[in-house]
Amino acid sequence: MNSHFQPVDLNKAYRLLNHGPTVLVSAGHAGVENVMAAAWACALDFAPPKVTVVLDKSTRTRQLVEGSGWFVLQLPTAAQARLTHQVGTRSQLDDPAKLARIGVQLTRIEGYPAPLVNECSAWLMCRVIDEPHNQNTYDLFIAEVVAAWADDRVFKDGHWRYEHADASLRSLHYVAGGHFYTIGEPLVIDERD
Amino acid sequence: MNSHFQPVDLNKAYRLLNHGPTVLVSAGHAGVENVMAAAWACALDFAPPKVTVVLDKSTRTRQLVEGSGWFVLQLPTAAQARLTHQVGTRSQLDDPAKLARIGVQLTRIEGYPAPLVNECSAWLMCRVIDEPHNQNTYDLFIAEVVAAWADDRVFKDGHWRYEHADASLRSLHYVAGGHFYTIGEPLVIDERD
Repeated sequence: MNSHFQPVDLNKAYRLLNHGPTVLVSAGHAGVENVMAAAWACALDFAPPKVTVVLDKSTRTRQLVEGSGWFVLQLPTAAQARLTHQVGTRSQLDDPAKLARIGVQLTRIEGYPAPLVNECSAWLMCRVIDEPHNQNTYDLFIAEVVAAWADDRVFKDGHWRYEHADASLRSLHYVAGGHFYTIGEPLVIDERD
Repeated sequence: MNSHFQPVDLNKAYRLLNHGPTVLVSAGHAGVENVMAAAWACALDFAPPKVTVVLDKSTRTRQLVEGSGWFVLQLPTAAQARLTHQVGTRSQLDDPAKLARIGVQLTRIEGYPAPLVNECSAWLMCRVIDEPHNQNTYDLFIAEVVAAWADDRVFKDGHWRYEHADASLRSLHYVAGGHFYTIGEPLVIDERD
């Protein structure tokens, strides 16, 4: 990771997901690591921070999440749109070399089984809270965020600053069929109103 | 509602939330209607479409959702940023005239107890699927979407077209403290890659 990779206070971690970006979900178990894309990830609580994410039963990444009890949610950037689409449409079950073929690079943080995907703008290290009924009925996973980091060119002092950074660092917002939007312009409401 | 208000096929309804917008949650019960803002709403399934939303126990709107079993998720526009911030920071429990004071206008659709907020860009009529453990432990509500509509200037034929419409119709993406982003520019990946 480069010098912009900085820790984020856990009490601000929910802000990394508030604006509704598409995320990459990464996990590792028994020597296997994988990454998938997910539009259906959301914050669930402020403190301690929690998240939800929907992981289809057919995905390899879900198997690794269930095996290890951990995953990382990370925000891919506009520069990673093609990578995001490819990790979201190709399965490691079909192609064991999926990550290498797509050019996904991983960084491992000591003490955690789930790897981080390089060059994203933010990362949330998540420990699954077992809720079998949700997982079986809805493919819905709940997790506590135990650590978070961000690229300080775009997230600093608890706030996003996309408008002050290169546009290639903007978050992605998937719609369907290869169509994404990137995040746009800031709009500030005076809290005294 | 104006002439742009058109039904959305239920099998495309998930696309209304895929890009992660901030929503308004409306509900009605026993003669009382209310609206709150929520950043933590997300799609849960494609077909039949389902959603999740986090509704804090302290909110009036949650009481109406629990009483009636219904709510609407709707997407406020950039033009409604101030309205969104105000419905999100003021409580009807403190001010019974909240909606009138903020200038929220509602439309009622026959047969449904939850009203729609006028001038949003999309609406999802949601029927709660009772999951008391989630609701009590995490404030997390799961619902099935039974009907959906959108303003056809920005959502048509199953796709968002923000780039072809007035910027005032763009979706809002809340961060914190009165700071929103609006959705930005399209980025299309060729699915053959």
